[in-house]
Amino acid sequence: MSSLSSQSYKGATDWYPEDFRRREYVFKIWRRVCERYGYEGYDAPLLEPLEVYAAKSGQELVSEQTYQFIDRGDRHVAIRPEMTPTVSRMVAARRQELAYPARWYSIAQFMRYERPQRGREREFWQLNVDIFGSDTRHAEAEIIIMGDQIMREFGAHDEMYTIKINNRKLINFMMAQYLELDAIQSQLMIKLFDRKSKISPEVFRDQAIDIFGDRSHEGLQKIAHLLAAKTMADLPESIRDSSAVREVQELFTLLERAGVKNVVFDITLMRGLDYYTGTVFEFFDMHPENRRSLFGGGRYDGLVGLFGAEPLAAVGMAPGLTPMMLFLESHKLMPLVPSTTEVYMIILGDAMRGAQKLADQLRTEGVRVEVDFTGRKLDRQIKTAVKKQIPYMLFVGDEELSHEIYSLKDTQNSTEHKLSFERIVSTIKDRRRRPSQDDELDKLQD
Amino acid sequence: MSSLSSQSYKGATDWYPEDFRRREYVFKIWRRVCERYGYEGYDAPLLEPLEVYAAKSGQELVSEQTYQFIDRGDRHVAIRPEMTPTVSRMVAARRQELAYPARWYSIAQFMRYERPQRGREREFWQLNVDIFGSDTRHAEAEIIIMGDQIMREFGAHDEMYTIKINNRKLINFMMAQYLELDAIQSQLMIKLFDRKSKISPEVFRDQAIDIFGDRSHEGLQKIAHLLAAKTMADLPESIRDSSAVREVQELFTLLERAGVKNVVFDITLMRGLDYYTGTVFEFFDMHPENRRSLFGGGRYDGLVGLFGAEPLAAVGMAPGLTPMMLFLESHKLMPLVPSTTEVYMIILGDAMRGAQKLADQLRTEGVRVEVDFTGRKLDRQIKTAVKKQIPYMLFVGDEELSHEIYSLKDTQNSTEHKLSFERIVSTIKDRRRRPSQDDELDKLQD
Repeated sequence: MSSLSSQSYKGATDWYPEDFRRREYVFKIWRRVCERYGYEGYDAPLLEPLEVYAAKSGQELVSEQTYQFIDRGDRHVAIRPEMTPTVSRMVAARRQELAYPARWYSIAQFMRYERPQRGREREFWQLNVDIFGSDTRHAEAEIIIMGDQIMREFGAHDEMYTIKINNRKLINFMMAQYLELDAIQSQLMIKLFDRKSKISPEVFRDQAIDIFGDRSHEGLQKIAHLLAAKTMADLPESIRDSSAVREVQELFTLLERAGVKNVVFDITLMRGLDYYTGTVFEFFDMHPENRRSLFGGGRYDGLVGLFGAEPLAAVGMAPGLTPMMLFLESHKLMPLVPSTTEVYMIILGDAMRGAQKLADQLRTEGVRVEVDFTGRKLDRQIKTAVKKQIPYMLFVGDEELSHEIYSLKDTQNSTEHKLSFERIVSTIKDRRRRPSQDDELDKLQD
Repeated sequence: MSSLSSQSYKGATDWYPEDFRRREYVFKIWRRVCERYGYEGYDAPLLEPLEVYAAKSGQELVSEQTYQFIDRGDRHVAIRPEMTPTVSRMVAARRQELAYPARWYSIAQFMRYERPQRGREREFWQLNVDIFGSDTRHAEAEIIIMGDQIMREFGAHDEMYTIKINNRKLINFMMAQYLELDAIQSQLMIKLFDRKSKISPEVFRDQAIDIFGDRSHEGLQKIAHLLAAKTMADLPESIRDSSAVREVQELFTLLERAGVKNVVFDITLMRGLDYYTGTVFEFFDMHPENRRSLFGGGRYDGLVGLFGAEPLAAVGMAPGLTPMMLFLESHKLMPLVPSTTEVYMIILGDAMRGAQKLADQLRTEGVRVEVDFTGRKLDRQIKTAVKKQIPYMLFVGDEELSHEIYSLKDTQNSTEHKLSFERIVSTIKDRRRRPSQDDELDKLQD
């Protein structure tokens, strides 16, 4: 038999321990910020009926990107490409029993069949944060503030990212009342705005002319007027007076009060998914070599009602792991995340039995100890500890066991001390409290 | 349009916050024990080529239970039904670079198309713990000791579970040398032993007669002799002298030294998967109403080599979430796991702006605060806090803000205290240290 390939599925990641630790660092900060704002963890099935996405997620996602198949019970299912329909379904199923506003978060993986490229995988991980049961600006502000807090918790500064804000009601008003487009034209124009940063000004202009037809001269002028608006005050007067603009203004006021500074109004921000109904926003990386969307979200008041429940206001966001890691790397914000293991126990001679007992005593004290029980030569045991990036080596032989004094060596700086059991425990626990050890810094901050 | 169903996919679980917290409790103990023994976290893709399972996992699993489909790139893939082939593939891909013994663990979900029933879901979660690069009894003992430590960490006592141990080499020796069966008969007999606890003695006897053919009289006597063996000393002499028995004896010695007491030799233990090559074991629930396998594992030295790499010794186990939760429930070991949120802030009158600022100050101190910004009547806000099972309510109105003294009410026992900001923070942090709060109990036990 020829051997099987050792490659992972195309577009999916094998999370080896050193990569897994970096992933855990990101997840830990996500969880910490969510829980700090009173959001509770939940999780959901990998599979949903395909029709769940057909309803509101958008045509491209369903027909070109879903992993769909017929199961052994003849159900047409998809591996979830996003969480919003699923979490809406879960809330709908307990619409009457839940306490509102319900604040929920999850960290889970998703699959979309896209061309794998930098920052885009077929299997990807996302945080989903949602608040159900509030149709106020407070709910929208809270979600955006949490996005901002996540960025700050990672060490990001104001100049590293921008938060763009728009509103679907404002977009609809602009399309129908100001640009005077019908429903089909509006849809095309929204898609065109959505692609604006990815195409040339000429292509944008040509396609806009196509949409306007014989009103294109006037239409292009109006679009130029819109695109020139850097603040809401610059908007054409007929738009400025709409109730949708007041929603945006209220939101800006709340964000300002909360100290969120790097927020801008962007009339061209559309957000691709069909289900948004009000505020939409996007966190955008300002790194000169990495200018791209980081994550976004918005209000989607119509989804819960699709699952046979009384409609319910909802707003949420979904930061992705890969864009977040690219952001942290390009801004040099990703710390070195050490092994969770604290001590590599190196056994000298025939001391195995006593060494195992010592390891168990250390574990009882909460120390994380890996024992090298291979009986290999000293230098090979030491090499293994170094390769595993474990902070301490502990040398245990018969003599050490009889004197109850052991050599503890710092793997990085090679300093070595002869210590009693109690001193070993306290040395390792002290290290946890050192602020340079990021995973313990967490505990102190919390 | 008719509405979509709000039901989850059949055999999969919607993890609502209160269920999610219980799941997290189990995962936390799994993680803690693994890390205490120096195991590092990893994760892997959901999908693998189907052929990965066809190679060694066993026919029933592949042809009847896999979720398999052809992807948009014409690849025949399966949603992973288990982790062992995947983790072996990952190790094979970095066979030369990794440091050995490599100690890895993961907590991940899997899918098998089985009839959903108590303790068995189509989508299920498992811990996988594996050690690569050691062919000694030390490696096997360490894995079993960790299984035992997990049980103790959950509060289980010796009489609640038993650890059954057998060895594939011993099984092969027994089939070929002692029972004198050929390869096909041996396979059938192994499957029959595997089903023994699920069928009546009569059915077992009839099927054994079928396998032996005209040697059935002598065969049944030998099997009776085997089944009567409660310890290795009771085994027929020809088996007792085999090298496989010495492996089992060595393992028992190491387990005894480590204080693992409730371990028994069980000649009928087979473990279904085809890839095991040496020690196999199973943790078994002894609850009178729930006598069933909890989880198991064993040595599988042949898998890494299937992926084009130099062969590598391996041993591991895979406790499942659902059987573990059933165990904890039937033995009344599952604690009440409170909300991660610590304070529900109730706003009186028009104090929203100041209350939000106070909430942010509490969050800066590490307190987890949910703010009720709904402007609802007091009693409705209180009801929400109670329903969410949040330990404290904090009442904030204009008067409280101007005096900087706030009412903190214990949701469970209804005691209420007027406290300064500093006292609120210290009260909540003291609660974290109280041993009755199980998630802090964890830390004390470490």
